[in-house]
Amino acid sequence: MSSLSQGLSQALFAPRGVALIGASADPAKNNSRAQRLLQREGFAGRIVPVNPGRREIMGLPAVADIRDAGDNIDHAFLMVPAPAILAAVEGCCEIGVKVATIFSAGFAESGEEGAALQRRIVETARAGGLRLVGPNCLGLLSVPDRLALTLNVAIEAEELRPGWLGMVSQSGSMMGALFSRCAARGLGFSRMVSVGNECDLGVGEIAEMMVEDPETRIVLLFLETFRDADRLAAAARRAHALGKSIIAYKLGRSELGRRLALSHTGAMVGGDELAATFFRDHGILRVETLEALVELPRLILGHSPPRGRRLSALTATGGGAAMVIDRLGLMGDELLPPPEDMRARLAAQTIEVTDAPLIDLPMGMSGPERFSLVLRELVASDHSDAVVAVLGSGARVSADRSIAHIAPALPSPRPLAVFAAPQADDTLRRMDEAGIAAFRTPESCADAVHAYLNWRAPRDLWAGLVAGETEAAARRLAASPRGALNEMQACAVFAELGIEPPGAVVVASPEEVDEFAGPVAVKVVSADILHKTDAGLVRLNVEGRAAIRATVTELLDKARAAFPQARIDGVLVAPMHRGLQEVILGYREDAEVGPIVLLGMGGVMAELKRSFAVRLAPVDLGEARAMIAELPELQLIQGFRGLPRGDVEALAQAIRAFSLLATLPGRPVAEAEINPLIIRAEGQGAVAVDGLLVPR
Amino acid sequence: MSSLSQGLSQALFAPRGVALIGASADPAKNNSRAQRLLQREGFAGRIVPVNPGRREIMGLPAVADIRDAGDNIDHAFLMVPAPAILAAVEGCCEIGVKVATIFSAGFAESGEEGAALQRRIVETARAGGLRLVGPNCLGLLSVPDRLALTLNVAIEAEELRPGWLGMVSQSGSMMGALFSRCAARGLGFSRMVSVGNECDLGVGEIAEMMVEDPETRIVLLFLETFRDADRLAAAARRAHALGKSIIAYKLGRSELGRRLALSHTGAMVGGDELAATFFRDHGILRVETLEALVELPRLILGHSPPRGRRLSALTATGGGAAMVIDRLGLMGDELLPPPEDMRARLAAQTIEVTDAPLIDLPMGMSGPERFSLVLRELVASDHSDAVVAVLGSGARVSADRSIAHIAPALPSPRPLAVFAAPQADDTLRRMDEAGIAAFRTPESCADAVHAYLNWRAPRDLWAGLVAGETEAAARRLAASPRGALNEMQACAVFAELGIEPPGAVVVASPEEVDEFAGPVAVKVVSADILHKTDAGLVRLNVEGRAAIRATVTELLDKARAAFPQARIDGVLVAPMHRGLQEVILGYREDAEVGPIVLLGMGGVMAELKRSFAVRLAPVDLGEARAMIAELPELQLIQGFRGLPRGDVEALAQAIRAFSLLATLPGRPVAEAEINPLIIRAEGQGAVAVDGLLVPR
Repeated sequence: MSSLSQGLSQALFAPRGVALIGASADPAKNNSRAQRLLQREGFAGRIVPVNPGRREIMGLPAVADIRDAGDNIDHAFLMVPAPAILAAVEGCCEIGVKVATIFSAGFAESGEEGAALQRRIVETARAGGLRLVGPNCLGLLSVPDRLALTLNVAIEAEELRPGWLGMVSQSGSMMGALFSRCAARGLGFSRMVSVGNECDLGVGEIAEMMVEDPETRIVLLFLETFRDADRLAAAARRAHALGKSIIAYKLGRSELGRRLALSHTGAMVGGDELAATFFRDHGILRVETLEALVELPRLILGHSPPRGRRLSALTATGGGAAMVIDRLGLMGDELLPPPEDMRARLAAQTIEVTDAPLIDLPMGMSGPERFSLVLRELVASDHSDAVVAVLGSGARVSADRSIAHIAPALPSPRPLAVFAAPQADDTLRRMDEAGIAAFRTPESCADAVHAYLNWRAPRDLWAGLVAGETEAAARRLAASPRGALNEMQACAVFAELGIEPPGAVVVASPEEVDEFAGPVAVKVVSADILHKTDAGLVRLNVEGRAAIRATVTELLDKARAAFPQARIDGVLVAPMHRGLQEVILGYREDAEVGPIVLLGMGGVMAELKRSFAVRLAPVDLGEARAMIAELPELQLIQGFRGLPRGDVEALAQAIRAFSLLATLPGRPVAEAEINPLIIRAEGQGAVAVDGLLVPR
Repeated sequence: MSSLSQGLSQALFAPRGVALIGASADPAKNNSRAQRLLQREGFAGRIVPVNPGRREIMGLPAVADIRDAGDNIDHAFLMVPAPAILAAVEGCCEIGVKVATIFSAGFAESGEEGAALQRRIVETARAGGLRLVGPNCLGLLSVPDRLALTLNVAIEAEELRPGWLGMVSQSGSMMGALFSRCAARGLGFSRMVSVGNECDLGVGEIAEMMVEDPETRIVLLFLETFRDADRLAAAARRAHALGKSIIAYKLGRSELGRRLALSHTGAMVGGDELAATFFRDHGILRVETLEALVELPRLILGHSPPRGRRLSALTATGGGAAMVIDRLGLMGDELLPPPEDMRARLAAQTIEVTDAPLIDLPMGMSGPERFSLVLRELVASDHSDAVVAVLGSGARVSADRSIAHIAPALPSPRPLAVFAAPQADDTLRRMDEAGIAAFRTPESCADAVHAYLNWRAPRDLWAGLVAGETEAAARRLAASPRGALNEMQACAVFAELGIEPPGAVVVASPEEVDEFAGPVAVKVVSADILHKTDAGLVRLNVEGRAAIRATVTELLDKARAAFPQARIDGVLVAPMHRGLQEVILGYREDAEVGPIVLLGMGGVMAELKRSFAVRLAPVDLGEARAMIAELPELQLIQGFRGLPRGDVEALAQAIRAFSLLATLPGRPVAEAEINPLIIRAEGQGAVAVDGLLVPR
């Protein structure tokens, strides 16, 4: 029995009894698999097959209805067709089942009818105190508890080996694929859940349970989307506090993920940039290759996020190591040469090592003694954050000799990745047995090492927040008219956060125009009209009261003619602001990852060539400066080639201030944009020339 | 015996006799391995160990000196230390050896002294009619001829299985690694050569021999650099003509490869963009993962370059297929849904397939019969160029059933890639035996499929060249002063190719200035001064004779003061050209891949953010237009958002004309640049405002 203490965890992973609703006695049928596995593994609790046509299934008494299952049925596994699930859920509620895992498909994934059925099932379960996994999932495993509620054929083919890995998968079939790939590397699991449609229990909540589980040290996630990002973020923070880690593989990197959005910035950021910032900001390691998901856990077990992205490497094969290092170089990681004192110590043992970044021990030099001597120096040295060791053709021939290259450097104070260039089945098996992080391909090795080097502790999003600093903005927003805010209203809210407003006035008629000192911009104000420039409803550089009045009249007429349905709030007259650079600030309550803030280049090129930096909101000043550093165009105002310097610090403050929209109580903002924010010369600030705010 | 007919191929791969210079009788020594392998494999020719301290080695009579080796020694394998190699080479020449393969290190790779030794050896061999492989290489294999001249331990560990793969590797240790990885997949070789320092026989020439070899159908290249690009290009063209293919893996993708260059464009293109354009232009398939190098050959065997980049896919596991498709999407390949008529045919067999791009046969639907029925439709259909089939957990359990999913679709009229999501050793072995292209990771599967979809027939670089059209430019260049050409001289050469010159005059003193209609640019002319704008030696928008004269005087004084050593050819006065967009054209005789032409964005941003398109030169108009299409910034002058259109056709003509520098007899140009080329409005041409040309 496991040491799970909490009610839900216990019911999910270590139930006193399980009911198998829709169990089959026919071994050729998938529905027979769960019971066969439970019996094979020796599950210690009660097993109650439920099947109206059978009195007995595989030696166990069967009942016709879940209501007859008797006491202590904490967990039910539902395999009956979708139309029969509601009745089964009602039965579970009646006899006090705590969790039901629904294998059956035909719910939200299949269309509107299925979605309606799913909603009814959730309502019924909620009312009856029943939690749900699935539907449309492949079940779960709790190896220490000998619980295997799954129909996956690949899992049945393996021995259920206990281990310290947990896994949550949104893909059912990949649960089996990953289980078998881990098994082939001698990696066992504690708990593993296929979450299916996540109608109730989602990835985040299950990951939270695994993080709390004493038998789980690392949790793997196979993700297709985010459905409960806040819970997952909480799990990641808790994992960090407990010295555990979460590793994610996520599909949808190529999916552009452009969402219907009012503003330009909505289309600027695709799904994967947000996923990347989510993982990084919350301290989740992210891999991009399948094998790295399986091979990274041994590399980081017992290690914390690194201080930098510095790597050292030792190899018996130049070409083999170059394949790994080349990829790491593409990702921006740094390969450091051995320090002078290390080289001196090695020289004293007749091992001459140059100051080249890659330590290459050629043939004749690469015997186990010399190799392991250098390796011990590397893993002990503070000059790098992780070490890569590459074995050559010898790894094909002698596992003993290969192990002798590596073992003296263990346990390694910092992550040590071993890549074998040739086919080296025996050596890899021995390394797996010894708990060495051994890699089969240069790509998975580089991917895993990069994931480690790129790993950071969860960012404290609310760091640097000053108590009360957003109260005025919240009040202003609450007092604004309902619906989307126009330029003036939006910039007024932003001004309360400390962002300089355009100094504009809105007039309802030409008569209201006062004298302006310099040229002005004239623009129709209406939240209903997008792309006003395209519609000819913006005029720039208008000078003198008469000209301004004429322009106001003209634009009002034009807008009313072209957009008879639009509510027109007047005409905005604003000073022409000049500066060194224009940027766009965007804010969005993203459906998957929550509030985000974006910095992008302004102007027409922004649409042609994506150039932006994005973070979860809010950000502090340091993070805002890091965003600025990500945009090469902004080097133009940071002393490039003697060009005049812009007020980059004011930009950083504006980014931070804008991101504070995420801290307003109740997160009332769906989307907001400043376009453009004009950056003036150093010391002269930045001004929001135009803005937009859409409440939720 | 093989069917090799040519003299060099025969001596290299099927020698009548071999001498092993430096053979050892001690089985613990590396130097004993070649003889052991030859004897184990039953090499039919003479084997003569050469060792002054032995009369007999492993049962064969040994000689003290290569000169005593007797007749018919076509090939010698040299394992003695570097200082003894020259004498051995001399001996080889004396007795008429045709090829010597030099294992020994300590030559060009080790510094200047070694390079000098290498040069002497090459000279000696040339004079004596001896061709050389290496030095610093791991030798070679010719499996049909039972010839194994290598010291690689991984190769000794394998059975030498004959096959249709050839391999040339610049990395010695990777020869063994690849051999063992291929062996594990049941892939045999015809010939395999580790080329080492390529002091004589290089990758290109050896690849040419393999392409001509009737036993070789596909040649694998493991590359670190290009040393004989022209030969390799010739091999690739010949391969295409013979219906064979060449697949390359190349290191150095992250190495920025910036070369010392006079102009900006020299630094714009890194090594990997050039490698990519080289491979693509010459019809060489390029993979980016190691496993794909091993797994791609079966995919393309018997297939030609595709017509498009259209893919279709069938899966028994949604998550498993998504991993492959996601990567292909990142690389821009297109996944097409099954056409209407195919869906109708399948529906008639009770297989309902939607119009979603990925055909997902869920559990219960994915039995071998239904799966293979759909697969047969896909591989037979013209709507896509390649097919991906993904197997789920069943592949872990039953190899028979898995094969039955695929086999009915064979032989496939178009490449068929099979990825197994779980660990599936038995299934993969059976697929290997059946010659099915089976992939172990989603990454190698996507990489290989992309390499195929991206494969094109070799580009005919000289297509569209008009006889005599570069004669005037060649004459003008020949008549120019020696050394780097200044702006005026360079633009005069470009004008002969049809590129509009700036219409400038060069004056030696202010008195020579004539009247100009509009404002002019004034600029010091000197090939010795770079970055003249930074040095304050350029003035724009100067108007009126007096102002122009004053500026000429001022700039001359300034240049003489700041650059006393520079030769100053005068001051250029040119009309200010205005247009819609500025670009840079670059040309370079690249040390690795030969002449290239580059189109980049002009202005300061060009240095901050790389934006360019590059091709091997020359290009025809179609290729020039394709380069223009690669630069998002140039959409601004192609009707974007109603902005005025630029003369893009004139730009295409200028790119083509500039690239013709590669066709001048003797390729006399080392480097040339037009910066900027100003593109005027549609129909009004493009003008070279400034230029530079550096002869070789």
